[in-house]
Amino acid sequence: MNRIRASIITIGDELLIGQTIDTNSAWMGTRLNDAGIWVQRRVAVGDDRQAILSALEEESAKSKVVLITGGLGPTADDITKPTLLEYFGGKMVRDEATYTRVMGFFESRGLPVLERNVAQAMVPDSCAVLQNLRGTAPGMWFEKNDVIFVSLPGVPFEMKGLMENEVIPRLRERFHTPALLHQTLITSGMGESFVAERIRDFEAAMPAHIKLAYLPSYGLLKLRLTTEAPDKITAAAEMKDAHQALKSLVADILVAEQDLPMGVILGNILLEKGLTAGTAESCTGGRIASQITTVPGSSRYFKGSVVSYANETKTSVLRVSPETIRQHGAVSEQTVREMAEGALAVLNVDCVMAVSGIMGPDGGTDEKPVGTVWIAVGGKENIRTMRYHFRYDRARNTEMTAIAAMNELRKWLVG
Amino acid sequence: MNRIRASIITIGDELLIGQTIDTNSAWMGTRLNDAGIWVQRRVAVGDDRQAILSALEEESAKSKVVLITGGLGPTADDITKPTLLEYFGGKMVRDEATYTRVMGFFESRGLPVLERNVAQAMVPDSCAVLQNLRGTAPGMWFEKNDVIFVSLPGVPFEMKGLMENEVIPRLRERFHTPALLHQTLITSGMGESFVAERIRDFEAAMPAHIKLAYLPSYGLLKLRLTTEAPDKITAAAEMKDAHQALKSLVADILVAEQDLPMGVILGNILLEKGLTAGTAESCTGGRIASQITTVPGSSRYFKGSVVSYANETKTSVLRVSPETIRQHGAVSEQTVREMAEGALAVLNVDCVMAVSGIMGPDGGTDEKPVGTVWIAVGGKENIRTMRYHFRYDRARNTEMTAIAAMNELRKWLVG
Repeated sequence: MNRIRASIITIGDELLIGQTIDTNSAWMGTRLNDAGIWVQRRVAVGDDRQAILSALEEESAKSKVVLITGGLGPTADDITKPTLLEYFGGKMVRDEATYTRVMGFFESRGLPVLERNVAQAMVPDSCAVLQNLRGTAPGMWFEKNDVIFVSLPGVPFEMKGLMENEVIPRLRERFHTPALLHQTLITSGMGESFVAERIRDFEAAMPAHIKLAYLPSYGLLKLRLTTEAPDKITAAAEMKDAHQALKSLVADILVAEQDLPMGVILGNILLEKGLTAGTAESCTGGRIASQITTVPGSSRYFKGSVVSYANETKTSVLRVSPETIRQHGAVSEQTVREMAEGALAVLNVDCVMAVSGIMGPDGGTDEKPVGTVWIAVGGKENIRTMRYHFRYDRARNTEMTAIAAMNELRKWLVG
Repeated sequence: MNRIRASIITIGDELLIGQTIDTNSAWMGTRLNDAGIWVQRRVAVGDDRQAILSALEEESAKSKVVLITGGLGPTADDITKPTLLEYFGGKMVRDEATYTRVMGFFESRGLPVLERNVAQAMVPDSCAVLQNLRGTAPGMWFEKNDVIFVSLPGVPFEMKGLMENEVIPRLRERFHTPALLHQTLITSGMGESFVAERIRDFEAAMPAHIKLAYLPSYGLLKLRLTTEAPDKITAAAEMKDAHQALKSLVADILVAEQDLPMGVILGNILLEKGLTAGTAESCTGGRIASQITTVPGSSRYFKGSVVSYANETKTSVLRVSPETIRQHGAVSEQTVREMAEGALAVLNVDCVMAVSGIMGPDGGTDEKPVGTVWIAVGGKENIRTMRYHFRYDRARNTEMTAIAAMNELRKWLVG
């Protein structure tokens, strides 16, 4: 099949020394896949002329499309543009549309325009300029030896605007790509190897052009099917069959039929049932509420949270009895149950999640080691409690707790 | 200078199609830098034999150290191990220490041991095995043509354990590396190009082996100095001078002298002043509390948060007057001030942040467009309010609001 292959080159020392996590590549990968373009390599290099030149040379030998982000700012460490000029040839010229935008950008903010800002409008005349409506650095589209190169700013918000408005539409127009479909099922409660054992026959019988991948993710297991076909209709039909078959094999451990964040999965159920929810969070410190409210429109079903990090807040705001905490401790079934009861009353919601645990690195005891978590979920008539024990570091324990709590409320709602 | 160069290869289709954000590489980059090893390239490839073989070949031609993560699980899509066997030669043998650990892992959890789990203990006899104390897939250390290759599991928690316990100590032992130092200043309130203009003379006068980078980050600007010297003492002395000089040039806009998350910067000030804090969050949905409680020991100064996503929660828990909301709206100076006052009383803390805004994509009006945010910070006698207007998407608006609120409380505390 005529697969269009792409490489993504990200530029910046901050990516190599670990100061910045590269979120751009993942986002770009998703969008390119949607357009039927297969990202086969992602390469990060530093702010170094020779490293950039090598990467351009090597990736264009492998891929038909090379997307480049970063190094386009107005300061001396931003060397992408002169390096592109060197690689593609030509001379620097002023792009009038960019110039007008840059001037307007600073004028509208009442700021003076510096020479280095004006320089943002200078581009190699060997490129087609893509207008960046969200910032001052323009996108640049080059072609050389039948390979397309697109240089984009590294600021995610600006890169995304250019990808959506300019790059993806132009690539779609250029290539007649095969349809590339991914679909993911999410399961919980069974380890990767046991799931693999259970679906062994299904996996063995899959046609060669359908791929199955196992992705463990914070106590969940994602099963991703990928199929490729000459057209969308064929791909969708094949995917539907494989997805149905796989789904029926994991029905008892199924969390969701698509790869959605747990906050979205839970939100959809609440919306469908017309119920409101809230949280009482101790050890997760607001992380559950934060994940739920990431979703636009979550105010339709989420009313709020009491982050009771201090015991005093548990008693004063959530009305947990001081006697309960004294007798059983803040991390106990009794306390988390009273937190849930308190949240139901104080937030006036239909259902809640309450969590209390020891995330580490300190605070553990023999009886309640680091990673011990009590969770309560439910509504006024029916609160369910459960104990978890995570064996990770603080950040991972917190994330695992947030996802486990949302998953437990999900089970309570659908069960 | 004898710079040891490294490449990181990450393996997995999920990285290319955008299903997973690669956080491993950034973490590994930081640790390798601390050990004086310069990561010059990071490459992500799919679960594809030929792509892995090419990456091993190409990166080992450029780097002395090649670290590889991912593709070591127990399922059929995990092809890293057979590919390494093919590349390095030898035959598969059972590693007894790993076998014992795998058996113990399943026994201690009361799970049966499957054949595919036992296979985790099979390794090429061309490698030295690194024991993974946090999971079943072992680390593998190969050497070929004077290049070191280390294969590690992709699960971040397991990879980190192996890096800290095995890989970094062995690399330190092997190489006498030059000292590589990074130090970052954080500023706020002035754009990248204006800061560059102000420190232009400093930048022009810097010796060639000191580098300065500009990293805009959610309304802040990070200035990173990098220096390299034959030994730590020289490097530290050079860094101290450059850092002092730069600091004095940006004293009026300085947020922090190190690259720390805003939750840590704020926490350190609270701890030093012996004050307690809390938050009242509407549009940020718990994100501020979550960032503050990411820090171990934050319970010493952070007591909790009321996430009042619904107006009803603002009035019932935070005691905002319904009349205030009716008259001025939930996103207003008056409401956010009453939220702050309410949080001070309800959470019984010395100081608070309160935020209310419209994060988008919906909910904006002509008078209060998407991105409008009111913030209140302060203590009982002195609450300060300010209006922000962010022009981004929902996720970025939320993150900008959280950081702005923490920065405003920081200014209030030190001002």
